[in-house]
Amino acid sequence: MKLFRTLISLEEALRTLSSYAKGTEIEEIRFEAALNRVLAEDVVSLIDSPPFDRAAMDGYAIRGEDSFGAAPRNPVFLKINRRVEEEIGAGECVPIATGMPVPKGSNAVVMLEYTKELGDTLEIFKPVTPGKNVSFKGEDVKKGEAVLKAGKLLQAHDIGMLASLFKITVKVYKRAKIGIISTGDELIDPTLQQPEQEQRHQKIADANSYVLAALTQKVAVPYRMGIVRDNYDGIKNALRSALEGDCEGLLVSGGSSVGKRDFLADAVEELGEIVFHGVAIRPGEPTGFGIVNNKPVFVLPGYPVATISAFELLVRPFLYAMHGVTEERSKIFAVASKKISSAVGRTDFVRVKVIRTGEGHYVEPLRVSGSGILSSMTKSDGFVVIAENKEGVAEGERVAVTEYFAL
Amino acid sequence: MKLFRTLISLEEALRTLSSYAKGTEIEEIRFEAALNRVLAEDVVSLIDSPPFDRAAMDGYAIRGEDSFGAAPRNPVFLKINRRVEEEIGAGECVPIATGMPVPKGSNAVVMLEYTKELGDTLEIFKPVTPGKNVSFKGEDVKKGEAVLKAGKLLQAHDIGMLASLFKITVKVYKRAKIGIISTGDELIDPTLQQPEQEQRHQKIADANSYVLAALTQKVAVPYRMGIVRDNYDGIKNALRSALEGDCEGLLVSGGSSVGKRDFLADAVEELGEIVFHGVAIRPGEPTGFGIVNNKPVFVLPGYPVATISAFELLVRPFLYAMHGVTEERSKIFAVASKKISSAVGRTDFVRVKVIRTGEGHYVEPLRVSGSGILSSMTKSDGFVVIAENKEGVAEGERVAVTEYFAL
Repeated sequence: MKLFRTLISLEEALRTLSSYAKGTEIEEIRFEAALNRVLAEDVVSLIDSPPFDRAAMDGYAIRGEDSFGAAPRNPVFLKINRRVEEEIGAGECVPIATGMPVPKGSNAVVMLEYTKELGDTLEIFKPVTPGKNVSFKGEDVKKGEAVLKAGKLLQAHDIGMLASLFKITVKVYKRAKIGIISTGDELIDPTLQQPEQEQRHQKIADANSYVLAALTQKVAVPYRMGIVRDNYDGIKNALRSALEGDCEGLLVSGGSSVGKRDFLADAVEELGEIVFHGVAIRPGEPTGFGIVNNKPVFVLPGYPVATISAFELLVRPFLYAMHGVTEERSKIFAVASKKISSAVGRTDFVRVKVIRTGEGHYVEPLRVSGSGILSSMTKSDGFVVIAENKEGVAEGERVAVTEYFAL
Repeated sequence: MKLFRTLISLEEALRTLSSYAKGTEIEEIRFEAALNRVLAEDVVSLIDSPPFDRAAMDGYAIRGEDSFGAAPRNPVFLKINRRVEEEIGAGECVPIATGMPVPKGSNAVVMLEYTKELGDTLEIFKPVTPGKNVSFKGEDVKKGEAVLKAGKLLQAHDIGMLASLFKITVKVYKRAKIGIISTGDELIDPTLQQPEQEQRHQKIADANSYVLAALTQKVAVPYRMGIVRDNYDGIKNALRSALEGDCEGLLVSGGSSVGKRDFLADAVEELGEIVFHGVAIRPGEPTGFGIVNNKPVFVLPGYPVATISAFELLVRPFLYAMHGVTEERSKIFAVASKKISSAVGRTDFVRVKVIRTGEGHYVEPLRVSGSGILSSMTKSDGFVVIAENKEGVAEGERVAVTEYFAL
């Protein structure tokens, strides 16, 4: 049995983790499959976009100068040339639709609604300045320009940009395969085909591996590896075989608190190295981190809420670093409608309800006792992290909230 | 040709859309596949969670009263009973690990670190009050309690809750299949196997269908149906066959502005009904909406930025309503570091950069000319919607920003 009474601060843990986070491999994939992937190259445009001067409106391409002085009662008359390929001369115009190349010689598009066709003559009722209603070549993106930078999480409009630049494949960080193991004699898998009624009532469903898989899934590829009993050799063998396989990291939960069953950290230590064990966060204090076969292993608490807290505070930043994510998650600011208690010397992960009013957002902490209360998460809209140097949050104080909703 | 000079307000368009949004079918899927799906039933727990009184710490189950008065120099001695199944009596204790059922007769767990075993006798150095370190049956969720409500977007912890309640399948809104068509003589698909160099420089890559697919994908199932030329019959036939198939809705972009090529709205009108055409939003003004074969059809602008604006302001709320989403997207509040221009009478969709400082968030609008500038999206971190009754945003004014990052 190993005691870990020397807790390190969250800050120190994160600093340590960042020194261990190695970027995943880089793979080249089709641009349309790259939504929510992290770019691993600077995308430099090989073309101008638009590739030619094009009409930004439906109407007639003209020399803007030719329309000067036009008015509803004093129209300008131009000769309609219907051969778009030709260069137009003074006093001429060409019918044109949005997006089409403007013919040589023209420099503006007069909108359809300010014109009237009279056979081969066009009446124009409003002047346009040269350059008006034309998208010029390279106006959006110039050839040679770095359009998207490595580290960017690709959004829908970035996919559109790649399409518009004919950039068919992109280099992105490969999503790492992360093994997930739950440990504990008390656990059964809730999806067992014929769970015996009696067994159900004697056992606890393994929720952790499903929660961890769902959390991991947004960044990496989770691989649930089942439940291992609280048996030192069994645990050691499970960890060893998981890490000899193709997993690039491992999240093991359960049995990480001080106790007779504290086998996980010992097994990691025997197979490799425990880098830290015990972080001043609440819940999630008994979280540990180690390296086995050059691969990262997180030892996470057995209770789901503690595991989620440890994931959000420690594992998520590590996975982001592995996957080249440089951007920050969006946080809203809200006013605490009630005091939120917290102790100096530890970082608190507080589940909150968000109340939206006309004047702004308010948060209310969910009262909870213990990290076994998963309903404290399901009833919350987000969480607030209270830094270890803060003695709680006063009523009326402003806090940053990470909300869950993301569609 | 049809002019649509009577623009309706965004508010009116949204009101109209909400009256046309019918919920998708409901399907029953495995709980672990339900992340980011919208619940279509209230989940009522059939069990208590935890299902029994269990230890919240590693240590010894005792009658709390037996430990009163214990101190480091004045330990209390209890008899160790190693048969967990038995009811314990006064003066007895049972070794217990976190998560295990506490034996009958006990009401507290004394933590391992405050004890010492001496053969069959336990020394206790600190008292515990009855109830301490025990998670009581039903403490998290009571049998019969509605744990998750219909309309909830399922998060990782909700998946964990379903696991812990042995709720193996859940009813969710089926993701609707949404057809996507781009129209325009100027377009080519950027992924064509052998794009001829010359053709590339004469044509514009179809970005819209990829953008719309990426935007749609978070809620529904996008189905890209290719590019249709600017030919009235061709467009009409494409719309008809798309809507006779299994698509539950259609997004058609291009050619929706006033002009000779304004075939889309006419085709929708001929095949069914145009409900509105022209909304006071910028960009995205020529957006239309209709019903064909009882299915919703959005007519979207040809320019990607205008299409994205119309998607965010009109299509997204419609898809949310179809899919039972009742929650709101998270918005941050930020201070405008520069004036943002906007005209009264239209709703503006403004791309902004977000600057995070110690004192708060600031936004800066991206200068743009025209909705052909996709780089105004790729350079932005989010967008601000300026309501039609507002004449721009003053420097220093607070605005709500929707950020894109969502991992």
